[in-house]
Amino acid sequence: MDDISAIKQVKYRYLRAIDTKDWDLLASTLTEDIIGNYGEDGHQGGNLVLTGRDNLLGFMRDSLGPNIITEHRVDHPEITVADDEATGSWYMQDRVVMIDHEMMLTGAAFYTDRYRRTADGWKVCETGYDRTYELTISLHDLPSFKLKTGVSLNL
Amino acid sequence: MDDISAIKQVKYRYLRAIDTKDWDLLASTLTEDIIGNYGEDGHQGGNLVLTGRDNLLGFMRDSLGPNIITEHRVDHPEITVADDEATGSWYMQDRVVMIDHEMMLTGAAFYTDRYRRTADGWKVCETGYDRTYELTISLHDLPSFKLKTGVSLNL
Amino acid sequence: MDDISAIKQVKYRYLRAIDTKDWDLLASTLTEDIIGNYGEDGHQGGNLVLTGRDNLLGFMRDSLGPNIITEHRVDHPEITVADDEATGSWYMQDRVVMIDHEMMLTGAAFYTDRYRRTADGWKVCETGYDRTYELTISLHDLPSFKLKTGVSLNL
Repeated sequence: MDDISAIKQVKYRYLRAIDTKDWDLLASTLTEDIIGNYGEDGHQGGNLVLTGRDNLLGFMRDSLGPNIITEHRVDHPEITVADDEATGSWYMQDRVVMIDHEMMLTGAAFYTDRYRRTADGWKVCETGYDRTYELTISLHDLPSFKLKTGVSLNL
Repeated sequence: MDDISAIKQVKYRYLRAIDTKDWDLLASTLTEDIIGNYGEDGHQGGNLVLTGRDNLLGFMRDSLGPNIITEHRVDHPEITVADDEATGSWYMQDRVVMIDHEMMLTGAAFYTDRYRRTADGWKVCETGYDRTYELTISLHDLPSFKLKTGVSLNL
Repeated sequence: MDDISAIKQVKYRYLRAIDTKDWDLLASTLTEDIIGNYGEDGHQGGNLVLTGRDNLLGFMRDSLGPNIITEHRVDHPEITVADDEATGSWYMQDRVVMIDHEMMLTGAAFYTDRYRRTADGWKVCETGYDRTYELTISLHDLPSFKLKTGVSLNL
């Protein structure tokens, strides 16, 4: 498989791991020194920079429990490889249903990632995004709203 | 065209056929022994397995009449080719507007497909998906809701 | 980079330019004789054909001011190259938030584009789409609706 295809695959696995809450799979996509830039536009809120795989995994486990349902999808990849490093831009769309808070967020953002070639294949070594917009609604405005989770989730 | 590109094209035609209600185009993407696994997470509901092109086409025609508007899109492909067979995983997003029932569904799922090389190109020989989530709302909660269908639909 | 990859990149830049309101970037993706077919199914409404880069750019600047937030994403590409011309079909999904009108539109359409190889790389020389559907709601139905724009927008 060529480098660009391999980099796309690790990005897809990274997002599949988050949206299915498969934290072991997520760990396998990250370098040990991963940097996560969850800035003012990240839906986690606040100017948050997470450094290191254990920190990032801990944050995801804590933030994305069974009552937070997420969908993150990316397209429009622009990937550039230089030896054993690569950069990637993606157009992301997300939906987050916060069951306990009875809120739903939808939005779009541009991811800027860095990837590194390791003995175990390409991994994400830095990730973050800047939003174009996000919108939130309270589910109180939609009294008929029904959510059903599926078997793809690791709950 | 390489095999992976050809397999993507048949998947895109398959979904374009469903969303435009072009049943002849849909037929051209399926092997005669196609298996459709529309399980408990499929939005068609129920534990449904359809075997054979005529059965699957009949089901689609009956289920997806002019008062059911669908959007199915896939990205994040992970496709593996082994000789004349291939497997594919895709991240699907769908929206279904059920005009008669005044309901709207949105959701996400992972497709698992099998493809077969035929004398007439790659075809889908098995398809099905498992959801991460689906959400439904009644259009009664959105009294201003207006739907306009476009010329891409075969109505 | 092969032709099909280069054509995808220019399409992604074209949409990124629109959704971030970066009109100089948009100009760089268009031939001087660009034709934009915004027909009865285009969300700009009306049977509108724009000819020439300056006309198209002027229209976009006027139509997509700071109080119109857009998201346009494409997937399912079917691209065919013949020498220095190419055609492309894409499955588009859009969301448009019209802040002043307190309306939100979501929909889907099939783009049909033509591209031309120039001394400065591939450019879009004709673009337009036909919808499968569009739906609109008034934000009055969602009193909790909150929109936050992000740093990716050139406002």
